[in-house]
Amino acid sequence: MPDNVEQFPIWRITETGRENTTDVVVREFTVTITLNNQEVATRLCSPRNLDYLAVGFLASEGLIEGKDDIKKIDVDSSGGTVRVTTKRDIQPARGQVKVDSDIEISPPQVFALIDDFVQRSEVFKATGGVHSAALGNAKNILVFNEDIGRHNAIDKVFGECLLNNIPTAGRLLITSGRVSSEILLKVASRNVPLLISKAAPTDLGVRLAQDLGVTLIGFARDRKMNLYANEWRIKR
Amino acid sequence: MPDNVEQFPIWRITETGRENTTDVVVREFTVTITLNNQEVATRLCSPRNLDYLAVGFLASEGLIEGKDDIKKIDVDSSGGTVRVTTKRDIQPARGQVKVDSDIEISPPQVFALIDDFVQRSEVFKATGGVHSAALGNAKNILVFNEDIGRHNAIDKVFGECLLNNIPTAGRLLITSGRVSSEILLKVASRNVPLLISKAAPTDLGVRLAQDLGVTLIGFARDRKMNLYANEWRIKR
Repeated sequence: MPDNVEQFPIWRITETGRENTTDVVVREFTVTITLNNQEVATRLCSPRNLDYLAVGFLASEGLIEGKDDIKKIDVDSSGGTVRVTTKRDIQPARGQVKVDSDIEISPPQVFALIDDFVQRSEVFKATGGVHSAALGNAKNILVFNEDIGRHNAIDKVFGECLLNNIPTAGRLLITSGRVSSEILLKVASRNVPLLISKAAPTDLGVRLAQDLGVTLIGFARDRKMNLYANEWRIKR
Repeated sequence: MPDNVEQFPIWRITETGRENTTDVVVREFTVTITLNNQEVATRLCSPRNLDYLAVGFLASEGLIEGKDDIKKIDVDSSGGTVRVTTKRDIQPARGQVKVDSDIEISPPQVFALIDDFVQRSEVFKATGGVHSAALGNAKNILVFNEDIGRHNAIDKVFGECLLNNIPTAGRLLITSGRVSSEILLKVASRNVPLLISKAAPTDLGVRLAQDLGVTLIGFARDRKMNLYANEWRIKR
């Protein structure tokens, strides 16, 4: 499997001068996802866990529902393709319903999860160039992935869950990236009731969180957070 | 024109408690760009300067070359469409050549430009949710735009330049976002010889900068920067 990073010689310039050094740069990879021999998407991504990316993407788009739908996954890293074959024809499922879950979590638990999340973001620490996403419960992070794209990092988390029979309903998702409407819909479609972002939401992200019953936390960093919707899941 | 931000009531949680307050959230807008009545792209973006976005996008894609190609631009903010009509049929121009320019700039000039760039990022200061891009010369920022998408912010800069007859060749572009291969190609296609990013490049971004003769600076912040390619344009 190709590596996620690569070293380059660079010049480092400060107010006091210039020196030759090396920098670890994040790799960018183009992958085409096909479903039953039909091209469905091409993504700029990080080259690891391409099977998770493809399956998570297909699930987010409503094109597969679970692992049982999948007959075969062929990953061709050198050619940049992931070919997914299903057992029967695809009937795209759509129509988002409200996320229903009684999960509650306390602010200290959120702060502890974020500390763990930041610790794990190793490629980011080395390159400053990737997003991270994680699935967890109130106490632990269960699945963690990184990618140069914030959508891809989340797709990889959901793909890993789907392939390894890890439930997502009633759990929480942590992302390093902004929460746009697309991200909120992606998370709600996996029945995740709690979305925690280190970054900002958009107006449509907030509105959809309100409407779809998702508890939305933004700017979760430095032991602070903003609570934008469905605050009742955060214990007092 | 719709505004770029909106206020929401939120709860602010810290280690010492929870309080009701309001937060300024960046707006997300969907716009469809048509060229001679053909749909060419749909973008999630910030709602300001949609004409710049459309024209910059079409120029980046090689679908228009200059202002003289354009007969009419209809912006429908409520419907979320920008319709661009050209004077004659479109012959997509492609094939990237090396960027040729003798421009040089000193490290103190880069640091001063970044200070100015950060000062101007007002929506980011309010919301933490947008990217910025600017065109400048060694001494001044000439054009500045913001958008929730890093590609869109750059397209808006180039669209504004194109519509207002502001040359881009031999000048520099500053971006708050990561430099992937797509960003590097977008900048090289406007003959900009110097790209300054506050964030990280990808491996393909670095390689294309080397090959296309673009001076690439990353992590330009806190009066430091990394120089990844064509360092000769940065004066000693």
